[in-house]
Amino acid sequence: MAGTFITLEGIDGCGKSTQAKLLAEAFAHTGSEVLLLREPGGTPISEKIRALLLDPENEEMCDECELLLYEASRAQLVREVIEPALVRGAMVICDRFYDSTYAYQHGGRGLSRDLVKTCNALGSCGLAPTCTVVFDLEPGVALSRATKGGADRLESEGLQFQERIRNAYLELADAEPTRVEVVDATGTPEEVYERLVAALADLLPAPKRSEES
Amino acid sequence: MAGTFITLEGIDGCGKSTQAKLLAEAFAHTGSEVLLLREPGGTPISEKIRALLLDPENEEMCDECELLLYEASRAQLVREVIEPALVRGAMVICDRFYDSTYAYQHGGRGLSRDLVKTCNALGSCGLAPTCTVVFDLEPGVALSRATKGGADRLESEGLQFQERIRNAYLELADAEPTRVEVVDATGTPEEVYERLVAALADLLPAPKRSEES
Repeated sequence: MAGTFITLEGIDGCGKSTQAKLLAEAFAHTGSEVLLLREPGGTPISEKIRALLLDPENEEMCDECELLLYEASRAQLVREVIEPALVRGAMVICDRFYDSTYAYQHGGRGLSRDLVKTCNALGSCGLAPTCTVVFDLEPGVALSRATKGGADRLESEGLQFQERIRNAYLELADAEPTRVEVVDATGTPEEVYERLVAALADLLPAPKRSEES
Repeated sequence: MAGTFITLEGIDGCGKSTQAKLLAEAFAHTGSEVLLLREPGGTPISEKIRALLLDPENEEMCDECELLLYEASRAQLVREVIEPALVRGAMVICDRFYDSTYAYQHGGRGLSRDLVKTCNALGSCGLAPTCTVVFDLEPGVALSRATKGGADRLESEGLQFQERIRNAYLELADAEPTRVEVVDATGTPEEVYERLVAALADLLPAPKRSEES
């Protein structure tokens, strides 16, 4: 496939959604087709699955059902949107993809590594990102960003959960160094963006930021 | 687990839903707890997934998404209903379980055997039926039953599809003869029921039908 598939990952509050927008805007100036997507969601069917996943009424949902729903939503997004876009030569930027499932369901929830990896292979229909950036941040800093002013209401269990997720991301980066890049997510959005562009430099033409000024 | 888990399978129109009810009624007279379930569905979350699967608005659904939704619905049913019932010692009768996914998604839709088997292992959370009965019938007879009076409106492709599903069920029975029993589904419901009871005789105490008369 002619296109480029970039996924952005990290714990809640790491700033990846902001960075995804900055990256999409910058590359839109290069004249390439750019798609900015978020998971779970991105197709009518995937959004319905997202609604099931996020509805607090469904608190009885077991871990396996949750995992399989994430994968079902992903499969639809891959087949209906991502694969056709990559065939057209587009750049696809996805805010979370299967590494989130690894980090949250394996690292966070404790489901077995093999189970989650097998599910990820199914849900992604065998499609791997060209490059994945993990925005790395101390969970305490990320949580205070995510809650805009203080993590007091979040229990310490919340921090430990985020710490396990962070560690799972860092394990992935160790295991797949050619695909997964870790970017320091401290500082302002502009500072983080400079690091992101540097991390992607080998892979992509530099966004024509000079043309904007 | 102390209980017994019986699954009933077959192509549409084979009569398994009628047989499931007859079996559940007969065993209710033995004093055991009996649960009659159908797939997909059986829990509030599984029913919401069923609605997604059956909604004609979702015609864009890809095969992988469909497969993963069936498995998500199944996982919730297993964890929330079937496993606790089996631990209590109940008899659980399920109208369709993972062999339907094998027969329809592999046999009918052509998804790879390994893919469907892996998904079935995930969606069933590793739980296998104690015994599975396949009600076997010529697709032409089954279709005319299912459509109550003639399969004219059904294209010949419909018959070939059902034929592939039937063959997948018969393959399963060959591959797992200790779990899967094939019952001839021709004749009246009473005739089929006698064969069903005979097929389950080795496994179960005979239903106390004499007490009913």
